[in-house]
Amino acid sequence: MSDLKTAALDYHANPRPGKLSVELTKPTATARDLALAYSPGVAEPVREIARDPELAYRYTGKGNLVAVISDGTAILGLGDLGPLASKPVMEGKGVLFKRFAGIDVFDIEVESESPQAFIDTVRRISITFGGINLEDIKAPECFEIERTLIEQCDIPVFHDDQHGTAIVTAAGMLNALEIAGKTLPEAKIVCLGAGAAAISCMRLLVSMGAKVENIFMVDRKGVIHAGRDDLNQYKAVFASETDKRTLSDALDGADVFVGLSGANLLAPEDLKRMAASPIVFACSNPDPEIQPELAHQVRDDVIMATGRSDYPNQVNNVLGFPFIFRGALDVRATRINEEMKIAAALALRDLAKLPVPQEVCDAYGGIALSFGREYIIPKPMDPRLITLVCDAVAKAAIESGVATLPYPKHYPLQSVNDVFNG
Amino acid sequence: MSDLKTAALDYHANPRPGKLSVELTKPTATARDLALAYSPGVAEPVREIARDPELAYRYTGKGNLVAVISDGTAILGLGDLGPLASKPVMEGKGVLFKRFAGIDVFDIEVESESPQAFIDTVRRISITFGGINLEDIKAPECFEIERTLIEQCDIPVFHDDQHGTAIVTAAGMLNALEIAGKTLPEAKIVCLGAGAAAISCMRLLVSMGAKVENIFMVDRKGVIHAGRDDLNQYKAVFASETDKRTLSDALDGADVFVGLSGANLLAPEDLKRMAASPIVFACSNPDPEIQPELAHQVRDDVIMATGRSDYPNQVNNVLGFPFIFRGALDVRATRINEEMKIAAALALRDLAKLPVPQEVCDAYGGIALSFGREYIIPKPMDPRLITLVCDAVAKAAIESGVATLPYPKHYPLQSVNDVFNG
Repeated sequence: MSDLKTAALDYHANPRPGKLSVELTKPTATARDLALAYSPGVAEPVREIARDPELAYRYTGKGNLVAVISDGTAILGLGDLGPLASKPVMEGKGVLFKRFAGIDVFDIEVESESPQAFIDTVRRISITFGGINLEDIKAPECFEIERTLIEQCDIPVFHDDQHGTAIVTAAGMLNALEIAGKTLPEAKIVCLGAGAAAISCMRLLVSMGAKVENIFMVDRKGVIHAGRDDLNQYKAVFASETDKRTLSDALDGADVFVGLSGANLLAPEDLKRMAASPIVFACSNPDPEIQPELAHQVRDDVIMATGRSDYPNQVNNVLGFPFIFRGALDVRATRINEEMKIAAALALRDLAKLPVPQEVCDAYGGIALSFGREYIIPKPMDPRLITLVCDAVAKAAIESGVATLPYPKHYPLQSVNDVFNG
Repeated sequence: MSDLKTAALDYHANPRPGKLSVELTKPTATARDLALAYSPGVAEPVREIARDPELAYRYTGKGNLVAVISDGTAILGLGDLGPLASKPVMEGKGVLFKRFAGIDVFDIEVESESPQAFIDTVRRISITFGGINLEDIKAPECFEIERTLIEQCDIPVFHDDQHGTAIVTAAGMLNALEIAGKTLPEAKIVCLGAGAAAISCMRLLVSMGAKVENIFMVDRKGVIHAGRDDLNQYKAVFASETDKRTLSDALDGADVFVGLSGANLLAPEDLKRMAASPIVFACSNPDPEIQPELAHQVRDDVIMATGRSDYPNQVNNVLGFPFIFRGALDVRATRINEEMKIAAALALRDLAKLPVPQEVCDAYGGIALSFGREYIIPKPMDPRLITLVCDAVAKAAIESGVATLPYPKHYPLQSVNDVFNG
């Protein structure tokens, strides 16, 4: 076994199985404590909530509780391995929610016979939670599932594989474009891959100013163009009026390559075809569409990001979802709308431009981090994330009218400790 | 507001809402830790579980995780207040599972349009858990819901309102009968109430030796007899060939009264009609079918139990469910069968006969506890519960062929600390 495999299996198994536990937050030492926690005392909050459902946020954990829910149809890059096999990932997501934003997570794996069955199941249990993070659900089903649940639930529903990736990509992209002296409305963008994350990335870039006519999406069959009759409705939005057919065609003179596809699918010759100061987001994991060493060898003017933690500029969803949900929960937003996603992306963009505290550099082996080609995206261990991103998301929720609470008194948060300590 | 109300609402609201949190059990300080907890390391347990589903018990929290699930149709004695209002109770159940047996609980509140929708929902999410505790679901729907889910799930499904009450009642009943010099097969039993707990109590007493022809069940319309045409299938099992029609009729010469009905429904005159050394389990909460003071005034030979913690002999479900699930989970039982329920009842019966450690007496205000009329049921704070009841349940699971693991190495448990650390 590889070192990583051995270490990962040991981490998950020992000293006890899994990564999460449920713990008590109130005293339970005496019979009196238990009479408050359960019968007869518990009847009091029950009656209060029956009288006013909003009081569930005062007397239960609902307001800080997010469900991470999967059907296991698209686990990481591993494919459809079923809901049970997705459990370590869902628990892992719970780890990240707690570690970075103090949010309690129940991971829920759903064995569903159809997208409709999945939707029905999630809707029926949604009252338990303050928010729902959908995870590892395959495209195109994930789009309809998310859309329907957003409509049917009065709490935020967010498919992180789509939007988390999109938000962090957008943040890094804006900084890369700035360094390259380009702008989003003018950028010619090629996206390799047309799954959940790819579609969502392109949608968000468009809503932030990219021109749909400047985007070529490329799937397994080549360029998505208007002449194809095999496109689902989500791909069809990006169908180009073009005679380009291959990835190579599309990359001719392109400013930006976004890869959400597979290992080594960006050939060096194709990288050579791109415009000056090409921006390459090779996000396939664990192996990117082109190895950074190779890319830099081919083009010394390339600005690169990957999905890997061992290269600069990691597109890592953990920069997004914990803080987006924290901000949404704190103002009790009824949904996570486009304004909130854009606010998160802009906050991440701006954070990368600020001087980096020594503690953050130390957490990454003491490398000097400062805004530039090698640092266009903040690092997950940056304690300012929870201040800046939550704050931006909460403000956007208030301004766009989906918040039901005012700006929280404890904002801006100083660190995750503020969240834990309330 | 009453003191209890004020204290209970404060307990639930401060310093943070609710009673549970989800916490991390593995290190997450470094980027390396996170690479094991989530991508890329998490792919390893995913692949292992896809290869062998049993490994979910090694690499995730499934094996120590119980869902406490309600539709809110019968919350405590408060009735159908809906799933959201049930959340404090479900979280409270989670508190008790953790406090007494180290079991992690996700409380899940289900908004379902029908019993079938509830069943479908629970079945689809059941893969997440090692066991399912159904709670506060009204009769008669609860019977069919539990029966169907037991059939469809390969993990234990247990409706505590039925069986928890039944098991603790049976334990106390056996001791009361012994003290009264009577036996279960000969005892004439009257049960007032014919809901989930009542039906289940009588079923368990029958499977432990009571004669169904010696049982009169009484509902709002009087004695359940063969001439009635308004009985559901669960009540019909207990329909008597008799000309008795009222509770008073039924109590004439009865040895045992079990009340799972409402306050003050056992009149002093009816208590007088009972046989010598009458046994009265007046379990209505918060107000019993007859106040203990009054009962003792009317009959100085009465042996009494109630649902209240401020009188001797509390029939408290917490004596059962944490330990029954702990035993079932530890041998990975596929269900909680009749043998396991009986084993739990007998273990509780036997525990009440053992000398009581001083620490237990101290936990209850220093009263001397020793087997007799005032102490026929163990106390929840007794640290021997987890040893004796879990052990009995695990053994019964093994002997009845529903266990899939051997007798655990760490048995018998010494205390809840063994579970937390084990």
